[in-house]
Formats: sequence, C-alpha cells, structure tokens
Amino acid sequence: MTTSSPPLGLHRVIEPPGVLPQAAWRLDPDPAIAPDEVRVRVDRLNLDAASYRQIREAYAGDPDKIRAAVLDIIATRGKMQNPVTGSGGMLTGTVEESGPASPLGLTPGQRIATLVSLTLTPLVITDGLASWDARSEQVPCQGHAILFGRSIAAVLPDDLPAPLSLAVMDVCGAPALTSRVVKEGDIAVIIGAAGKSGSLSAAAARQSGAARIIGVVPSEAEAVLLRHPPTTRESPLVDQIVVADARNPVGLAEKVQAAGGPAEVTVVCVDVPGCEGGAILSTKQGGTVIFFSMATSFSSAALGAEGLAADVTMLIGNGYVPGHAELALELVRITPSVRRLFDMRVES
Amino acid sequence: MTTSSPPLGLHRVIEPPGVLPQAAWRLDPDPAIAPDEVRVRVDRLNLDAASYRQIREAYAGDPDKIRAAVLDIIATRGKMQNPVTGSGGMLTGTVEESGPASPLGLTPGQRIATLVSLTLTPLVITDGLASWDARSEQVPCQGHAILFGRSIAAVLPDDLPAPLSLAVMDVCGAPALTSRVVKEGDIAVIIGAAGKSGSLSAAAARQSGAARIIGVVPSEAEAVLLRHPPTTRESPLVDQIVVADARNPVGLAEKVQAAGGPAEVTVVCVDVPGCEGGAILSTKQGGTVIFFSMATSFSSAALGAEGLAADVTMLIGNGYVPGHAELALELVRITPSVRRLFDMRVES
Repeated sequence: MTTSSPPLGLHRVIEPPGVLPQAAWRLDPDPAIAPDEVRVRVDRLNLDAASYRQIREAYAGDPDKIRAAVLDIIATRGKMQNPVTGSGGMLTGTVEESGPASPLGLTPGQRIATLVSLTLTPLVITDGLASWDARSEQVPCQGHAILFGRSIAAVLPDDLPAPLSLAVMDVCGAPALTSRVVKEGDIAVIIGAAGKSGSLSAAAARQSGAARIIGVVPSEAEAVLLRHPPTTRESPLVDQIVVADARNPVGLAEKVQAAGGPAEVTVVCVDVPGCEGGAILSTKQGGTVIFFSMATSFSSAALGAEGLAADVTMLIGNGYVPGHAELALELVRITPSVRRLFDMRVES
Repeated sequence: MTTSSPPLGLHRVIEPPGVLPQAAWRLDPDPAIAPDEVRVRVDRLNLDAASYRQIREAYAGDPDKIRAAVLDIIATRGKMQNPVTGSGGMLTGTVEESGPASPLGLTPGQRIATLVSLTLTPLVITDGLASWDARSEQVPCQGHAILFGRSIAAVLPDDLPAPLSLAVMDVCGAPALTSRVVKEGDIAVIIGAAGKSGSLSAAAARQSGAARIIGVVPSEAEAVLLRHPPTTRESPLVDQIVVADARNPVGLAEKVQAAGGPAEVTVVCVDVPGCEGGAILSTKQGGTVIFFSMATSFSSAALGAEGLAADVTMLIGNGYVPGHAELALELVRITPSVRRLFDMRVES
C-alpha cells in the first residue's frame, strides 16, 4: 500500500476490492473513523437532479416507493449512488468527530457541505427518511457520513443563506479555473453568462482584469437577466451581451466578432451538446477554451479544432481547484449582479 | 460574411446551408477553385479504419458492393464521410492548381497529404475505383479534391517512405503538444509508450528536456518493443518501463510511483476507455494530463479529478499545432528507436 492510498478511502472499499471508492459497488460506512477521517452528522442530502428524476419516474412519483428505493440503495451500497444514472449529489451536516491526522482542518460542531460526490462518500441513514416528502431532490434526513483525508468539504458561511451557499459551491470550480486562466487585458467570452457557473465565471474574469467580457445567452429573456436596472451604479457583469444559439458555430462566431471578439479565453458554461465548434471559432489562435459543460464531447472538441486548424488550448473543466469554494462565495458577496442572479435561481 | 468565413470553406456547403463543411450533408466539389483554394489530383484515399470496417461488414466483404458503396457516398455527399460512423480519413495526391491567395504555400507538382479529415474535403472520383481491390482501407484512385485556405496539408518528404510519413502525420498532434507542455527537468509519464503517438510523444518529451520518462505499456510483449538491442549505443526512448493495466487507477499509480513518479506531465496515448483515473493519479498536484485518446470520457475526467481532489490541468489533445507534421517527421529521422517502432507497425 502506498502512502497515497488511505487518503483516497481505499480501506472503505468492500466490493470489488482494489478500485477507487467512486467505482466501488459497495463501501463500508462503519462510524468508527481512521486517524485521518472525519465523521459528519448528516442533516440533508442534495440528490443529483438526474438521479432523482430517474427514481421518481421509475416509481411514478409514489413517495413511499421513492423513499424505499433511496433507502435501499444506501443500505445496499453504503453510499448514495444511483445504479442507473451512476450519479450521487452532495450533503450538508455537522462535524461530529475529526480524526487527529485529518488534513481537512474541521472541528466538531462546524456546519459543512461536502464538495465531493455522494458517489464516493460512506453513508448511513437512521431515520428511514421519515421527514422527506419525496417531492424534490432535497432530502432532510438523519444519519452519518465519512470524509477521507483527500475529501473536500467547505464550512457553510454564517452570512449567507445555506441554499445559496450550496448552489454556489456546486459550481465553484468554474470561477476558480477561469480566474487562473484569464490574464489582465484579455477578452473573455462566457457562453451561458446568465447561469450560475456562467455569472460566477464572468465575475472571476472581471476580477482577473479582463479588458472586455462578452456574455453569450440563448434568448432575450436571459439577456434581460444580465442587464442592470438603469438606476444602479454597479459596474456591469459583462460589457457586451450576445443573444445567439451556441450550437451554430458560424452564427455564434460572427456575433462574437461583432461584439469585439474573438477571445483570448472562452468559457463554456451551458449544458447543451454541440457547443464545441462555436466555442473554438469564438477564440483567437493561441487562445484557450475552458469546457465546464458536462455535455461536452471529447471527440467533437478534439476533431473540431483539428478540422478548423485552430491552435487553441482546450481545458477539461476540473471541478477541484484549491480554495474554489471560498473564492466563489466571496465573488457572490462582492458582486451584487451575481447575487441577484443566484437569488432568482435558488429556492430559499 | 466575416473575413474568417471563406477560409473555412462555407461557400462549398450545399446542404444544410450555414453549417461548417464537416457538419454538412453535402459539399460542392466543383474543380474551379476560389482565389484562396488549392486543387489536388488525388492518387490515394486512406479511409478511417472504423469507416472501412463498417462498410466491409455491411456488404459482407463483397468487393463490388464495397466499391459501389464508397462511390455512392462520395457522389452523393461531395466528400468521403461515412454516414454511419461519421468518420472520413485522409488522402494523398499532387498539387494541380494553387490559387493566388492560398496561404498554404503549395506549388503545382508537389506531392502532399491532407492533414484535415476527408469529412470536410470536397472530393470527386473519376475512375470508378477500378484499381481498388476493396480488401483494405488504402484506396488507390483518380479524381480531385479541394483544400480551403484554412485546410492543412503537408508535403511528403523525399527521404522517407510515403506510408511511414502518412502514419507519422496521422498522429503528429501528440508529440507537438507534448513538446509544448513538457519543461526542462520534468518527469513525464507516457501511457501507451510503445505505440505510434506514444513513442513520438516520448521522443518529444526527451527533446523538451524531461529529466525522467516513464513509459507505461499493457504487456511484456510491448515492453520488449521499448527495450533496445543490447548492442545499441542510442540513448533509451524511456528511462523506466512500467507494465500495467492503465484502467486500474490504484495499480497504475503505485507502479508509476515505484518507477520514480508521479509526473509533472502525463500523456494518455492508448485508445482504451477508462484510463482517466489512472492518468490523474499518476500526476502530481499542479501537474498536467494530456488526453490524446479518442476513448477519453469528458465527464469521467472532470468528475474523476474532482473526486480525487486532484489539482491537475487536463488538456483535450488538439490534433492541430502549427508545425506539427515537420516536428514529428524530424523526431522519426533523429530517433532510431521511434523509427524502428514505426517500421514494425507500418506496412510499406
């Protein structure tokens, strides 16, 4: 066993042996923690939307059957990973015990959210999900979960509503990577600028010193969200708004060019397939495209850039960048336009 | 129309209008060229392996039917793009006419290979494919093809056999991007180091000053290919050989660590699904993974890195880097071990 194994939670994998916890069929959720682990008293699961939808449809919306199905998955697998969709979600809770060798810096009593997926988090539910109406992916519950040395958790801030903080943390990788890549004076194109990850990425590009930010949205209704009330004295979130179908490469590139593009850095934040070519064509030779959309096709991006003789660096949006949650929460605090967009999109 | 449109060949798109040539159902292969186009006298098509296999199986290997099917696709679509697989291939030929505004720098009489896909290249076949036995994806033929301003073509060198040059050009994006990313003193891990793109990437990493190159191969048979004859005085292509299943993240990472890893730069050159986690775990925090395998899953890479709290930069291997063909051909000339690997793998 190498020194890197225990932090990844390999000792919790029951079946099949030797795989990573995310790939495992079954984990051991024993509440006794190893020296580098943390045990959390869980108060809420936030199921992945695709996972919840699949279960709800499979049981025709029957609350008892939905509760039983989720309980069965957790009891069988030792984690909440939907076997059909493969996806999980995240959880909130309170730190109950922090092992002496845990590198996470958590202390008992802190209210936290996990930023690693439920698909790799050992979990036990003790209340039979009795207080969940099964009508949304928000699952109030009682039980415990285990964090490994290399898990990621963020303390929920006191000054922001918890649902807002969770929504911000859910997409916090995007502004963190945007912030790393955008340089002073760059032109940045944000595709899906009125969405959660898009608006945060626009704010991050501004903070990094972008000279011009072009926000792409699919409709006039979304454009309205990006425009400020005329009375506000805030600086605008984006400098130019482009209403375009991002799946039409030529149409998008022409509109971006008319708005002052192409860009040094293009950030793709819309979960719609077929945006690769438009993003590539909206980017200068020598520029960078960051793909945050899970609908991105690896081969479309690779072959598309080759077919267009486009010398662009293409990044797979990594959801983890050190300090990403803190950076995103701070952007929400200091950027009123982002806060407004989130308040509109998050049920509190 | 923006200034960037004609070089992309949009004026050749017949159906549906407005899409890029690669996405088009039908192109106009008129031999009369625009000022920035080049017309090539085609002598050979090199069909994409997946495309050829699909057609061969659909017609149970009957040569007449296979020839008729390929001719029908080209006549109907104005390009060789298999409607089932979506893939094309490349071609070789001789420059017949170069428009006065062509940026490609080609002159009539030069023997070239196209480095953009047949899926976006206007094409006419005039000999009914009479000299093709339909038994391999190598299709000797007569006809013409059109290159756009932003197409990519490379002059076939006189000092290397044409099949070798074609095989090198087919994977030349990998060493070019590796060469850009690897810095002096880096540790580099090449997954699939005995293959075509892998061996070239190893040679590129060496040229960029990598301090240690760890070559990963799936079997002892492949390891033998990487070892030099004991009499040779060449410097080795890789410093350490690791025999491992790249689909087993923990197993791979442990062996790479024992061989002197993890790496600053990991290059994935094997077309096998499921190598994302192993590549990520074989890379240092702050390092870079370059994915050249078309079997890469975008979401596995993005979620895998997040699940492992891995702060790694993940690049989608772009098949186009300026000067890539020349760089790869030069690596083959100056690296005897790479030349030997290619000679073994290429039928001449």
